[in-house]
Amino acid sequence: MAQPAHPWYTWSHQITIWGILVQIVCLDLEGVLVPEVWIAVAERFEVAELRLTTRDVSDYDELMEHRIRTLRSEGITLTDIQETIGGLAPLDGAREFLDTLRENTQVIILSDTFEQFASPLMKQLGRPTIFCNELFADEEGYVSHYHLRQADGKRQAVLALHSIGFEVTAVGDSYNDLTMIQTADFGALFRPPKSITEEYPTLPSFEDYDGLLGFLLADTRADRTL
Amino acid sequence: MAQPAHPWYTWSHQITIWGILVQIVCLDLEGVLVPEVWIAVAERFEVAELRLTTRDVSDYDELMEHRIRTLRSEGITLTDIQETIGGLAPLDGAREFLDTLRENTQVIILSDTFEQFASPLMKQLGRPTIFCNELFADEEGYVSHYHLRQADGKRQAVLALHSIGFEVTAVGDSYNDLTMIQTADFGALFRPPKSITEEYPTLPSFEDYDGLLGFLLADTRADRTL
Repeated sequence: MAQPAHPWYTWSHQITIWGILVQIVCLDLEGVLVPEVWIAVAERFEVAELRLTTRDVSDYDELMEHRIRTLRSEGITLTDIQETIGGLAPLDGAREFLDTLRENTQVIILSDTFEQFASPLMKQLGRPTIFCNELFADEEGYVSHYHLRQADGKRQAVLALHSIGFEVTAVGDSYNDLTMIQTADFGALFRPPKSITEEYPTLPSFEDYDGLLGFLLADTRADRTL
Repeated sequence: MAQPAHPWYTWSHQITIWGILVQIVCLDLEGVLVPEVWIAVAERFEVAELRLTTRDVSDYDELMEHRIRTLRSEGITLTDIQETIGGLAPLDGAREFLDTLRENTQVIILSDTFEQFASPLMKQLGRPTIFCNELFADEEGYVSHYHLRQADGKRQAVLALHSIGFEVTAVGDSYNDLTMIQTADFGALFRPPKSITEEYPTLPSFEDYDGLLGFLLADTRADRTL
């Protein structure tokens, strides 16, 4: 290996300065790429109780206990739910949005949903990577237990990505996305309820995929600063 | 919300016991899913110096310095390299293997390569999520700098996934995969050099995708224990 004489070549070519970081985008699933799954189940089986979300019952465990009881009392099995979800499609334009995004940067879906619910929708979205939770059914086929990967999982995922050198941009639509968005380097809302935009008026907010894509793929950091 | 009388319903349905963890698979890229990129560049431009890998020069920075100098002295630009990579295809059967795996579990590619090299191959693999590094070219188009997301990035990624509640299975073919494999909960080699199988005789090792898929999708942990 002959060494060129110019002293420049003796310097390291590795860039380690702060500010040059590999980018990754974390997206919420329901409301951002696909319809709200529990709402779809509530409508299909005409069970109003299943329309309750974290907007109505702030304690997630309490909400899930209620859903599990209601499903059993209404005779709705995990297979019934999965069939309902199998009939859903991603939101209009979501697949094209996600394809364009994945051509340009790395993407991970961060969701509070369950793998057993997400799978048929993930297939239609081109199998992006998703970090979510798991459900278990009993011998009769009813949802009996659930396993949350961890508490405040979306925010913890952003912290984990930070710990391995990523600059994270996070997008969500709901209250359960706010810690993720606020922990990320950059963040935005997509079709949020009015109450959130009123509480967080400085967060960029988008109603269509073209606008969101422009934000996510902006060349200059200034365009994406919170 | 009527509460059923049975006391079982007053228990939490959340499973938090150890041993029930969401699965994720981390795969090396070159040698596991696609050909070795630097070897392809060395062959296309007939520059033997570019055939050197971490097997020959154990210090990664030293190896990259040497590659950057050689590319410049041989007049090979980043665009030339990208065109060469654009002409490569994934290994026979890699896309089908990865599609089947992604239908069944979450997958992240952990690679020491650069986004600028990986992108055309990622497209052919259906855009799986990849954690890798970044390259920069100067005004003449020559590779001038590189940015490693962090030192020992593959192992750190496994630790980060552990920190957010995943059980990780890691697969690689080379010396730079060993810390990742040994940090993961389960691990295997795919088409490794003989020297590695001799040094690590207890690591499961596979020569074809069907065997590897059987290992990765095994129902029982016992089948996948290191």
